[in-house]
Amino acid sequence: MKIAVLGTGMVGTTIGSKLVELGHEVMIGSRTATNEKAVEFANSNGKIASAGTFADAANFGEIIFNCTKGEISIDVLKLAGNGIDGKIIVDIANPLDFSQGMPPCLIPALSNTNSLGEEIQKNFPRTRVVKTLNTMWCGLMVNPAMIGNGDHINYISGNDAEAKATVKTLLNDFGWKNENILDLGDITNARGTEATLPIWLRVWGATNNGAFNFKIIS
Amino acid sequence: MKIAVLGTGMVGTTIGSKLVELGHEVMIGSRTATNEKAVEFANSNGKIASAGTFADAANFGEIIFNCTKGEISIDVLKLAGNGIDGKIIVDIANPLDFSQGMPPCLIPALSNTNSLGEEIQKNFPRTRVVKTLNTMWCGLMVNPAMIGNGDHINYISGNDAEAKATVKTLLNDFGWKNENILDLGDITNARGTEATLPIWLRVWGATNNGAFNFKIIS
Repeated sequence: MKIAVLGTGMVGTTIGSKLVELGHEVMIGSRTATNEKAVEFANSNGKIASAGTFADAANFGEIIFNCTKGEISIDVLKLAGNGIDGKIIVDIANPLDFSQGMPPCLIPALSNTNSLGEEIQKNFPRTRVVKTLNTMWCGLMVNPAMIGNGDHINYISGNDAEAKATVKTLLNDFGWKNENILDLGDITNARGTEATLPIWLRVWGATNNGAFNFKIIS
Repeated sequence: MKIAVLGTGMVGTTIGSKLVELGHEVMIGSRTATNEKAVEFANSNGKIASAGTFADAANFGEIIFNCTKGEISIDVLKLAGNGIDGKIIVDIANPLDFSQGMPPCLIPALSNTNSLGEEIQKNFPRTRVVKTLNTMWCGLMVNPAMIGNGDHINYISGNDAEAKATVKTLLNDFGWKNENILDLGDITNARGTEATLPIWLRVWGATNNGAFNFKIIS
């Protein structure tokens, strides 16, 4: 499959490399086609990896991963242009606000009674937004078996059942077992998964270990 | 020990009954000494249980459990008066806002860059606030072994190490193993634990089971 990854940070390159490993053609998108980290990603991931602008990547991909910082995600998707229309946006970003010190809080306008996932869906109604993977360190996103036999939780939410089913298949390819993927319902449930960050950050701070995740015990 | 439980809802009566079972003298506090649920609690829990006003209970207790609704907690503690001075307040409440529909969001002024736990500590600086147990259904608070051999997480936070140690002993008596009580640090960490509610509520909604809790896998 042709997949666009928007964002050249640790999340974007981790997701991109895993997709390449799975045999997908990946174009990583950034503000400029010559972005250093994007070019490095393309050079180190073989022929099926490439780099381009956000618009290049959006036009290229059949599915689009949003791996940008939450505070710029809407702007980035505007830069991506019409290429995103009709496509699935897998939204992994979180609306973190670093302006109030550490640990970051959530961007007030994008939390509690709203969420980044919803805001993307509202701004780009011709896309199908699926929120997932945003509640953990990126190393675990693509390798859940790294801890606890892979038995810990990954949430998925979105308004389009078919889009969620497609993303679920990709998650299975990442190593996620169906019983550990909890479908919360529509995209408003991103309010819940994005609100995991405040406790995630504090557990990380207290344990000095980011390679953890939550498991639901019942 | 003499313990005050403020609040006559399910959380207050569950905590109160457990404390009585453990041999503590418990006075449950409400707006009026003749509150029906408080009197029922006192009548059904033997001689060491009693009912009174918030002020009666605060004067009686060496430790005070706040089991009121988050939206009224500050007002209730004002009604409790000087009896709370110098004492530990175990704050189990959450700042839920039901005015925007279901599931509730968090009260904006008491979340993200603030928390109910902090707000109580700020308003009543002569008390020692310890936030704990607020991330789960009350049945599990006093009986963690009900699920997963009791191996799931309970957070504790507060500014006073001695107060946290005292509360930890009570948590042990409730059935919590030390390795499952994670000290996050000072009371600002209540921002994290109270922010667990948005995802807790959605997992509950998706699974129709409130008798669950999170476990940290690493």
